Amino acid sequence: MPDAMSTIFDKILDGEIPCHRLYEDEHVLAFLDIGPLSLGHSLVIPKERVAQLHELSDASAAALGRVLPRLCRALVEATGADAYNVLQNNGRGAGQIVDHVHFHLIPRIGDQGLGLGWDAGSLSNDGAAELVARFTAALDAAS
Amino acid sequence: MPDAMSTIFDKILDGEIPCHRLYEDEHVLAFLDIGPLSLGHSLVIPKERVAQLHELSDASAAALGRVLPRLCRALVEATGADAYNVLQNNGRGAGQIVDHVHFHLIPRIGDQGLGLGWDAGSLSNDGAAELVARFTAALDAAS
Repeated sequence: MPDAMSTIFDKILDGEIPCHRLYEDEHVLAFLDIGPLSLGHSLVIPKERVAQLHELSDASAAALGRVLPRLCRALVEATGADAYNVLQNNGRGAGQIVDHVHFHLIPRIGDQGLGLGWDAGSLSNDGAAELVARFTAALDAAS
Repeated sequence: MPDAMSTIFDKILDGEIPCHRLYEDEHVLAFLDIGPLSLGHSLVIPKERVAQLHELSDASAAALGRVLPRLCRALVEATGADAYNVLQNNGRGAGQIVDHVHFHLIPRIGDQGLGLGWDAGSLSNDGAAELVARFTAALDAAS
């Protein structure tokens, strides 16, 4: 049912607006992005309606993960791309616009595709040990 | 066994070089990226040794997908990030350097994180119909 929190992907899932559907199963829908970065730029979404990946159920996440290689094979075959990026953004600061989990499949075709900015630092051993301790504690608490 | 095609991730999986391990199960290993874009930048890899996502088995892909939300919850908790990107690159043209499937988990913390270049086009109905037909045929053939 549409409400104030309804996203455009809810409307696609509810059949209220159309999409160029590529694949569908019990847990997953894939369709073409209408604002493509390159030929074949596609979106893969869970039918479960949560905004960010850390909110997704294990079952939905497993179903979505399972179908990704097959969708990527078809994308490579359909577009002839010899490279591609899989991107999933969470939160405005990370470029997320639609608040429903979605994975972008973005073929790299010539100069078309995803642009990456990569300003890498260097990990110190002390910083790493502290991070591992915090992560591991959080992982245990969040299981 | 190391050979000419062995990657740094093979050496990590084989215990020949160390990593800052965050998580491990039968199918998946997660560890800190030593050249982080931001605090907590992590890598999640399948133990299955294939270069690109479209080559990965359904079982490995499902196991990796299943654990992503849990790892993201721990990452958000451990770093305090309120946004993050999940990125998986395939092929040199898409920025892949190590030829073993890997998912980057990249917190956005202030101005640190993944840079995105987004030069979007517009999808025509005719182009979409042709793409859907080619994709669907490829999907059927590749199942």
